[in-house]
Amino acid sequence: MCASCPSIFPAPGSKADLEEGSALTPRFGADGLVTCVTTDAATGDLLMVAHMNAEALAKTIETGEAWYWSRSRGELWHKGATSGQIQTIVEMRVDCDQDALWLKVNVAGDGGCCHTGRRSCFYRKVETTDGKPGLVQA
Amino acid sequence: MCASCPSIFPAPGSKADLEEGSALTPRFGADGLVTCVTTDAATGDLLMVAHMNAEALAKTIETGEAWYWSRSRGELWHKGATSGQIQTIVEMRVDCDQDALWLKVNVAGDGGCCHTGRRSCFYRKVETTDGKPGLVQA
Repeated sequence: MCASCPSIFPAPGSKADLEEGSALTPRFGADGLVTCVTTDAATGDLLMVAHMNAEALAKTIETGEAWYWSRSRGELWHKGATSGQIQTIVEMRVDCDQDALWLKVNVAGDGGCCHTGRRSCFYRKVETTDGKPGLVQA
Repeated sequence: MCASCPSIFPAPGSKADLEEGSALTPRFGADGLVTCVTTDAATGDLLMVAHMNAEALAKTIETGEAWYWSRSRGELWHKGATSGQIQTIVEMRVDCDQDALWLKVNVAGDGGCCHTGRRSCFYRKVETTDGKPGLVQA
C-alpha cells in the first residue's frame, strides 16, 4: 500500500458513526483491503467479487471507473485498461460496518468481466447429487 | 476452524480444474475463509457480504440454509437462528477461481438481513460533493 494511503480516508469512528453516519470511513482489513461486490447496473447480475485498498477506492471515486487491488499480481488494477472492459460506476454503496462496497456498473468493450472470457465470474452452480456437491454450468 | 475442516472439501487442483472443472474445491484464504455474497432470490437485491469457513459451507450445502463464520464473534453462525431471519438457499454459485460464493436466498421471518434492522446491509450510497465523498441513505 502506498505510504500516504492510510490518510486518504478518515479513521473509522464509533459503531454508531460507522453504521448511521454520513462519513465514508472504510474499515480496511489487516491486509489493507475491503471487499467489493460488482453488479451490472442494468440487469442486477453479480459480475465479480474483488478487493480495493485505499488508493484503489480513492481512484474509483475520483475517476468514476472501477479500480481494484489485484491480490494475485500485487498491484493496482484499473479494470478494463487493457481489455477495454472499463467499468463505469452508476452507483456505489457501502455496507453497515463499512468493510464492504457495492459497485453498480456499466461495462464497456464487449461487456465481459471474467478473465475466462465470460460476462460474469459466477458461471457455475453448486448442485448436490447423492449428497455430494459438484459444479454445473449455470 | 475445526480440526477436520480441511478435509471436508477436496484440495484445489490446477487452474484449469478450478475454472472449468465440475468439482467444488473452494480456495479458503490464510484465515480459512471464503467470501460469500448473498442476494434476494426474488428481487436480485444485494443483501449482505459475509464469510464462510469449510464447516459453514458444508452445513449450508447440507441443510439448504445459510451458515456463515462470524469474524467478530469467532464462531459458526446459523443466520436467523435467533432472529427468525433464516435464509433458504434457492441457488448457490461459485466464481472462476473458487474463492467466492454467491447465495440466492429467500429470507424468512420479517425478511430482514442487516443487524441494524434493515432488509439489506447496503443502505447507504457513496456520493461526492465538492470532491469529497460522503454517505447518503439510499
